[in-house]
Amino acid sequence: MVYLTRIEHFNAAHKLYNNLWSREKNDEVFGKCANENWHGHNYELYVTIKGEPDPETGFLMDAKKLSRLINEFVLEKLDHLNLNEDVDFMKGQFCSTENLAIGIWNQLADRLPSSAKLHCIKLCETPQIYVEYYG
Amino acid sequence: MVYLTRIEHFNAAHKLYNNLWSREKNDEVFGKCANENWHGHNYELYVTIKGEPDPETGFLMDAKKLSRLINEFVLEKLDHLNLNEDVDFMKGQFCSTENLAIGIWNQLADRLPSSAKLHCIKLCETPQIYVEYYG
Amino acid sequence: MVYLTRIEHFNAAHKLYNNLWSREKNDEVFGKCANENWHGHNYELYVTIKGEPDPETGFLMDAKKLSRLINEFVLEKLDHLNLNEDVDFMKGQFCSTENLAIGIWNQLADRLPSSAKLHCIKLCETPQIYVEYYG
Amino acid sequence: MVYLTRIEHFNAAHKLYNNLWSREKNDEVFGKCANENWHGHNYELYVTIKGEPDPETGFLMDAKKLSRLINEFVLEKLDHLNLNEDVDFMKGQFCSTENLAIGIWNQLADRLPSSAKLHCIKLCETPQIYVEYYG
Amino acid sequence: MVYLTRIEHFNAAHKLYNNLWSREKNDEVFGKCANENWHGHNYELYVTIKGEPDPETGFLMDAKKLSRLINEFVLEKLDHLNLNEDVDFMKGQFCSTENLAIGIWNQLADRLPSSAKLHCIKLCETPQIYVEYYG
Amino acid sequence: MVYLTRIEHFNAAHKLYNNLWSREKNDEVFGKCANENWHGHNYELYVTIKGEPDPETGFLMDAKKLSRLINEFVLEKLDHLNLNEDVDFMKGQFCSTENLAIGIWNQLADRLPSSAKLHCIKLCETPQIYVEYYG
Repeated sequence: MVYLTRIEHFNAAHKLYNNLWSREKNDEVFGKCANENWHGHNYELYVTIKGEPDPETGFLMDAKKLSRLINEFVLEKLDHLNLNEDVDFMKGQFCSTENLAIGIWNQLADRLPSSAKLHCIKLCETPQIYVEYYG
Repeated sequence: MVYLTRIEHFNAAHKLYNNLWSREKNDEVFGKCANENWHGHNYELYVTIKGEPDPETGFLMDAKKLSRLINEFVLEKLDHLNLNEDVDFMKGQFCSTENLAIGIWNQLADRLPSSAKLHCIKLCETPQIYVEYYG
Repeated sequence: MVYLTRIEHFNAAHKLYNNLWSREKNDEVFGKCANENWHGHNYELYVTIKGEPDPETGFLMDAKKLSRLINEFVLEKLDHLNLNEDVDFMKGQFCSTENLAIGIWNQLADRLPSSAKLHCIKLCETPQIYVEYYG
Repeated sequence: MVYLTRIEHFNAAHKLYNNLWSREKNDEVFGKCANENWHGHNYELYVTIKGEPDPETGFLMDAKKLSRLINEFVLEKLDHLNLNEDVDFMKGQFCSTENLAIGIWNQLADRLPSSAKLHCIKLCETPQIYVEYYG
Repeated sequence: MVYLTRIEHFNAAHKLYNNLWSREKNDEVFGKCANENWHGHNYELYVTIKGEPDPETGFLMDAKKLSRLINEFVLEKLDHLNLNEDVDFMKGQFCSTENLAIGIWNQLADRLPSSAKLHCIKLCETPQIYVEYYG
Repeated sequence: MVYLTRIEHFNAAHKLYNNLWSREKNDEVFGKCANENWHGHNYELYVTIKGEPDPETGFLMDAKKLSRLINEFVLEKLDHLNLNEDVDFMKGQFCSTENLAIGIWNQLADRLPSSAKLHCIKLCETPQIYVEYYG
């Protein structure tokens, strides 16, 4: 078994806000992250898959094909968009990095070829914070 | 003469949009960057000053004091905010990285101690794009 | 279960030295790292915790609160200090990166909120060497 | 148990090519990576070992000794060379990153001191692709 | 005047070899870099242009258009290729990083729009070596 | 004219302390950096030289020879040492990054071959602070 990771990049706006709470409570809990006019990030996304290398190619999976899958089912839905407003698979959820990593996992887990399994989604929100989700 | 650089970080939302143009023309020129619901970035800001080291301390300027200046006059006005909506010194300007670098220069140039001069503002918008402004 | 990592930074002096050995044996085993006048490093510290995201916030734990815990119980005891001389929780131990990572684990493991568990301490001593400890 | 990682660097040429296939099929499957005149990479190699720190030194293993092992059994056989043509332990194998990581594991697994075990080979081929192998 | 930098990436094989010299002299001067079976690198390319921001867009130049120019006139001629064998604009020249940076300058200098001028080509060959050329 | 940069790394201990001042004044001016038991850093050193590429090699200067010069005249005098106590060329000077960059310049400026001139010493003390000196 080997693990192959492809790193991709996207930019997005979001805010942290619980609609069931008052503005004051949101400010108290989320601080600057609750700014009503949004803020945003450059996100680094690490997608790790696992399986056996194909004896005819030496590849677990062609990294360019993995990149195309990530582009089609993740980046086109997130890049240069607003995570709270524009993203179908995040509707009704808080846009924390934790929930976004889980959402990305759900976008990809059933779309890999049968020879590979999704192992980990790692999502870096700032140079000091990242989240990992293993399903 | 030595040059001292302090690196700081902020996150913000913005969009690229010319109000004198139609939505169609904005989409044509700015593409995804014109998304009406905003997008955002992690910005890396490099502030470089120049001058002679003080013979009593060996410092051109105490880097912690430089950091406090940048925090007070730049980061508190930009971090976790919306560059188009929330920033006094960007009012009426396009929020391109070029203009934002010039705006940051103008915030800092007259606030350094007399022994140091502002030399360069370098602003990284994504891992692939940065702008430098020398006044 | 999700994993959240917060990255922090500190600088410190240390030397590698076994007091039960002669100067010659220390030089032979530890080489330049045994320099009696000390040397030092910029350490990058990765603290990873695990648990379920809170349904009201989407957070496993507020990263700013995690940062404050790390600052209070780790960084204030290490930053700009001498690991052999100044650090209560390293008294009587060799200041190897391995032991320092274990020491940092012990500082934090019992101080997390009940909804989160410490998963890993990763400590980078140079751009070429790091240690991980999982308890 | 602690984990110690040493990071090393090498440069090499290679191509992706299956000799049992036609040139056309190779171009179709491997694209630009099948260029008959080769291409190349800067590889970043992470070697992670695990075990208990030695009570006399605080070391799982002296990182300089680990570096010498990696240099002797891996880097001298790969650095500034052609992975398809010049490397004894890759003879008869496709030079995918997956297979190269497995080959490097096999070079090192039996050469560590008894107090340490090889845990992971991580091999970064480009800033966007890496492979991990755990034996 | 502002400066805008776009960073791109390519991989290539090369060797350092003077055809007027013997194999022995090449080995003596270039060492491992003269390996007859080639070696290779991941190159990071920084293209910096200078000029005034356009008052209608805030852009010195649309970074996506700059990226397309670099792709068409530089990356398509270098990426996943052999610098000594496959690159028209390097024919008859030594494939040092110095000469490659000058060659890339010559590919781009006359292809920028009139509102921008090429300022610098920075080419990183390894994490420890880079070259800059200002025309 | 081309510019070639070689990046090297060293670790050292130091403190910021003016012997003509009281302990209180040193603490007030230098804060944690004045700790009497020292602290330390991983320094990244960028040495940039300028000149014409040699027509026989394509090199401004062989980067390995530049590296050997830096090792002999700079790194052997700084690495794993105490900047205040152990370094001949810093005797009697404050160990600020500014002064250390100037000291490194003086070590190298007259030791380059006649075909190259020293252009810049860039010294990174932490991930947030660096100094440049151009002679």
